[in-house]
Amino acid sequence: MRILIINPNSSQEMTAAIQRAAADYAGDAFEVETIATPGAPEYIDYYTDQALAAPGMMQIVRDNEAAFDAFVVACHCDPNLDLLKQITDRPVVGIGEASMKIASMLGHSFSVVSAGKHSIPNKEAVIRKYHLEGCCASVRGPKDDFDDPTVEGPYLSAAQVALEEDLAEVIVLGCAGFAGMAEQMSAKLGVPVLDGVVCGLMVAEGLVKAGYSTSKIRRYKPC
Amino acid sequence: MRILIINPNSSQEMTAAIQRAAADYAGDAFEVETIATPGAPEYIDYYTDQALAAPGMMQIVRDNEAAFDAFVVACHCDPNLDLLKQITDRPVVGIGEASMKIASMLGHSFSVVSAGKHSIPNKEAVIRKYHLEGCCASVRGPKDDFDDPTVEGPYLSAAQVALEEDLAEVIVLGCAGFAGMAEQMSAKLGVPVLDGVVCGLMVAEGLVKAGYSTSKIRRYKPC
Amino acid sequence: MRILIINPNSSQEMTAAIQRAAADYAGDAFEVETIATPGAPEYIDYYTDQALAAPGMMQIVRDNEAAFDAFVVACHCDPNLDLLKQITDRPVVGIGEASMKIASMLGHSFSVVSAGKHSIPNKEAVIRKYHLEGCCASVRGPKDDFDDPTVEGPYLSAAQVALEEDLAEVIVLGCAGFAGMAEQMSAKLGVPVLDGVVCGLMVAEGLVKAGYSTSKIRRYKPC
Amino acid sequence: MRILIINPNSSQEMTAAIQRAAADYAGDAFEVETIATPGAPEYIDYYTDQALAAPGMMQIVRDNEAAFDAFVVACHCDPNLDLLKQITDRPVVGIGEASMKIASMLGHSFSVVSAGKHSIPNKEAVIRKYHLEGCCASVRGPKDDFDDPTVEGPYLSAAQVALEEDLAEVIVLGCAGFAGMAEQMSAKLGVPVLDGVVCGLMVAEGLVKAGYSTSKIRRYKPC
Amino acid sequence: MRILIINPNSSQEMTAAIQRAAADYAGDAFEVETIATPGAPEYIDYYTDQALAAPGMMQIVRDNEAAFDAFVVACHCDPNLDLLKQITDRPVVGIGEASMKIASMLGHSFSVVSAGKHSIPNKEAVIRKYHLEGCCASVRGPKDDFDDPTVEGPYLSAAQVALEEDLAEVIVLGCAGFAGMAEQMSAKLGVPVLDGVVCGLMVAEGLVKAGYSTSKIRRYKPC
Amino acid sequence: MRILIINPNSSQEMTAAIQRAAADYAGDAFEVETIATPGAPEYIDYYTDQALAAPGMMQIVRDNEAAFDAFVVACHCDPNLDLLKQITDRPVVGIGEASMKIASMLGHSFSVVSAGKHSIPNKEAVIRKYHLEGCCASVRGPKDDFDDPTVEGPYLSAAQVALEEDLAEVIVLGCAGFAGMAEQMSAKLGVPVLDGVVCGLMVAEGLVKAGYSTSKIRRYKPC
Repeated sequence: MRILIINPNSSQEMTAAIQRAAADYAGDAFEVETIATPGAPEYIDYYTDQALAAPGMMQIVRDNEAAFDAFVVACHCDPNLDLLKQITDRPVVGIGEASMKIASMLGHSFSVVSAGKHSIPNKEAVIRKYHLEGCCASVRGPKDDFDDPTVEGPYLSAAQVALEEDLAEVIVLGCAGFAGMAEQMSAKLGVPVLDGVVCGLMVAEGLVKAGYSTSKIRRYKPC
Repeated sequence: MRILIINPNSSQEMTAAIQRAAADYAGDAFEVETIATPGAPEYIDYYTDQALAAPGMMQIVRDNEAAFDAFVVACHCDPNLDLLKQITDRPVVGIGEASMKIASMLGHSFSVVSAGKHSIPNKEAVIRKYHLEGCCASVRGPKDDFDDPTVEGPYLSAAQVALEEDLAEVIVLGCAGFAGMAEQMSAKLGVPVLDGVVCGLMVAEGLVKAGYSTSKIRRYKPC
Repeated sequence: MRILIINPNSSQEMTAAIQRAAADYAGDAFEVETIATPGAPEYIDYYTDQALAAPGMMQIVRDNEAAFDAFVVACHCDPNLDLLKQITDRPVVGIGEASMKIASMLGHSFSVVSAGKHSIPNKEAVIRKYHLEGCCASVRGPKDDFDDPTVEGPYLSAAQVALEEDLAEVIVLGCAGFAGMAEQMSAKLGVPVLDGVVCGLMVAEGLVKAGYSTSKIRRYKPC
Repeated sequence: MRILIINPNSSQEMTAAIQRAAADYAGDAFEVETIATPGAPEYIDYYTDQALAAPGMMQIVRDNEAAFDAFVVACHCDPNLDLLKQITDRPVVGIGEASMKIASMLGHSFSVVSAGKHSIPNKEAVIRKYHLEGCCASVRGPKDDFDDPTVEGPYLSAAQVALEEDLAEVIVLGCAGFAGMAEQMSAKLGVPVLDGVVCGLMVAEGLVKAGYSTSKIRRYKPC
Repeated sequence: MRILIINPNSSQEMTAAIQRAAADYAGDAFEVETIATPGAPEYIDYYTDQALAAPGMMQIVRDNEAAFDAFVVACHCDPNLDLLKQITDRPVVGIGEASMKIASMLGHSFSVVSAGKHSIPNKEAVIRKYHLEGCCASVRGPKDDFDDPTVEGPYLSAAQVALEEDLAEVIVLGCAGFAGMAEQMSAKLGVPVLDGVVCGLMVAEGLVKAGYSTSKIRRYKPC
Repeated sequence: MRILIINPNSSQEMTAAIQRAAADYAGDAFEVETIATPGAPEYIDYYTDQALAAPGMMQIVRDNEAAFDAFVVACHCDPNLDLLKQITDRPVVGIGEASMKIASMLGHSFSVVSAGKHSIPNKEAVIRKYHLEGCCASVRGPKDDFDDPTVEGPYLSAAQVALEEDLAEVIVLGCAGFAGMAEQMSAKLGVPVLDGVVCGLMVAEGLVKAGYSTSKIRRYKPC
């Protein structure tokens, strides 16, 4: 089995970090590759970034459909997920959707730790799209002026507030850039901390093994 | 006041039809122009169509920000509306959002008449995005094999079913291609039948006069 | 076009303030008049006030149906709105409904600033009636012992709390008595601040121009 | 203990029917009286009817507060219930609210049988007000041209449709005029059929015995 | 009329306290007995406790169906309520369901005061099961390290926070162990404070008098 | 990796069928065993069946915690799932929860095909517990008098109705007894048909590989 992870941005550094986390999870069970999106911006944060990433992401899917069994979109806001589901018969899994739905099976409610505060509403819109408002205790982020997903401190604090004030029981890391941070945060917090790439692969591998993919009857009917 | 209507597809015929309906509504109160989207497909039906229309729609907004006071997106699925709200300080109004929210003020519940049956789930997703599930009696369309928004019959039948079986009280025409059909359908059905372009202009004109526009504090913060 | 604004209370001072704001918005586009409700209390705050205002409001509508094209109810709790929608074929617009639905088009979520704290639950009940819970970040008011809608300070503070703690992106002024306060509050807060009377007129003018009015098929069937 | 049932309409015939059903339920446990509302119409069907009944209903409460321990409003749309809760410290129970909340304890979901089809939306609005959408399978009524709550046939048919098509498990009679019909309908349908007046008395008697009444802290704060 | 209260735990002390409160409410109107559950743990707090209590609770119902007219389950998380509703034709009332639904008739929203903080999620799950999220302002408990339902202080504080910060208008005591505390808390807080056992008896007595019981058509169909 | 599937009933035939489907899915990737529950009834249909199965299920978990990495509960109503999540640190996956959440990632909405019509409300209650109402088009079953999950015809018809009338896009098989039926139904229906046991294993295997398990902070805190 071969799974292709699409990093919707063009950062080679983040692509490499995702690939490391992915290879760790995959082990010998399946092959995994991660590809950056040509023409996309360095970071996906705004609706404009999503639009700029769309042509490259479509191209990746079309170029790799024959060689891969499934695709994972590795940005927590699941940019262009509906679009990719429509253009391929292969399973396409968003790490946002996968991680939050897995989280909902592990505790009473989850909170998402967001890279920056201004993206909280965008995440809430995604949560609503997936009908997950009822399972989501909160979306929490560090102060507005902080936005570096490789430094743990402010995100750990945000998670602690979510556990204590919002009574969350599970933490979902809300950015692919957090790859590799889950294990140590979980040890410190004493609750499950979910990494999106891991959850995306978990679902993608399962779907391939089970032979399940996107329904093509109406919403994702190919054009 | 000058309002620019963006037809997200590239059909000159539909652009002309929209402009006629728009000019009728505008009268002497404001100037209105309709522009087709360069590079977009002939009809916006699928997620791929929306992605293909995005670059052209962004370009239109950027080219016309100085000359127009507001933009209206004239496709009932409001393609790329969040995107356009982010890139301009001018008000941007989607005809889907405007018509369904106006409809919710005119009766207990509304039904949307969709051009084709396969787009019902997509419309439901949009309705949910706008938190309108509770006001929406149903999305109804003609049989799967019919999809021509210039022939009234099958749409009138769909609307009648919505009024009788789903207890809708207001009908929303779910396609910009229905432009001009509202009045005669309303006369036959005995309930308000709302045209998206008219509703979009209604809100856009009001916002300009009131000096209101998109909040830029978080979700639509410019990048 | 002639629009009649019904002030559901009997305060001549508030009637005059509403009329000034309304005339500003209307400009040359349409005629607008504001009328106080005979027999109503000085201020509409309680369910009893609404009941006491009902006969006068009905009388106003009946007396003015021939001379006016639409009615606007200028109290943010939209007292007796269902009642008036039932007794006339003319459009009837509540400033609460109009302003909150317009607000929902301008940002991720809105907060209502209420004149006094004890009326927060009543406003929440109205928000639920309009299916707007999902778009409403909060209803905020100044401390219980303050209730004078002509002094800006405490309301500005309440709005700031809504923006920062509840992550609201748009502010709705929750009392017709706030007429004229919107523009300066918006300048201070950096987000849209919506005035109910302006929003009510915006919708009413649009409905008249479009030829739309209340559906009479079931819920508002005349008796 | 003395409970006063307020029939919001002025029909002496319906008042007598309600009193018979009430006396049957009360037995020796408490005293019950039913009073018609002076100045109200013969039947409460429209928002106008509710407004016309308001002054008389307020007067009844004020005149009888000293002599009675609780009030029951005996019309299934609970007209002016918020209003009466505000003006008295005595418990005020609406037969709509009481019967639907009791119904929600007796099965997976309930359906309301409405006197006429045009009042279905109004009932749905009341159900939403009470946060009962999730427990309500449907509101069903006989054909539009039938509206006589003393003839069982069409209502029994509506109830059967609710049980079979909407999978309701409990039937709520949606009109005080159905008084006395519950028992025989229940025998025929094989499910609980709830009478509003009985349910209203059940709750009112319990509240008096427990010493509970309306919270006066905010929403129903007396003016 | 004879009502049997099932205390799902095996504490004789709590059984006696419940019986005292029950007898006070019942007065001369009906007979009431309270029985501890053989084989159950001393306190029902966890899902395991509920499972361990199930066989004893079923046995109690089967042994007492002939002699009693209704059953009340006297633990606020309503353990095994669906189970008991299925095995008997007699009404079975849970004090959690009864008290929260009665509370929803007495004010805009209620808060539940929970014995300990760790059981808040479990209570939220029960509230959702009953479709009461919309009426529930919050579930509040004292600090994690406190869990003794016979000492009033920390619970009174939790209730005050609920009234002030969550804007609750009614307090529901979330543990049968609080029996007898309602009246004095209500006097101190100035809002209704509802005791579960009292509410359970209120509904049970009413159902017996009205001849209503669980619908056996589908969800609670006997096996 | 070793996964233990708990069949909550005592049928050796169904246990064998589940094991066959499970072994097919597991292949060489992990070991899987299926065990029937001692003391449980032949079929889990009613709340009483769930209660009778509880002691045996707890015993199975306690006896096998050391030897297995995860547990799957193989009955689509997920009996005693909360209970088992509380008593072990190992992941516990219900096939109902897993299959419906996976289904929600594969199309706009899913329908559950239920073994018999009387269990539809019970399934709806489970769907609500998981906050999945918004993704679920319907629960459909064959006529009341049919209840044999090994005969495909009536279930295929129910699925077809769900696809056409309820606009479902994915089918979830609502009974572990349907094991092995998914593939051929999917071929006939042209949409994904999900088998609960397969979905349960998919999630369980992923959780073990990722090192994720139930949060023990509050709702599932061990006693």
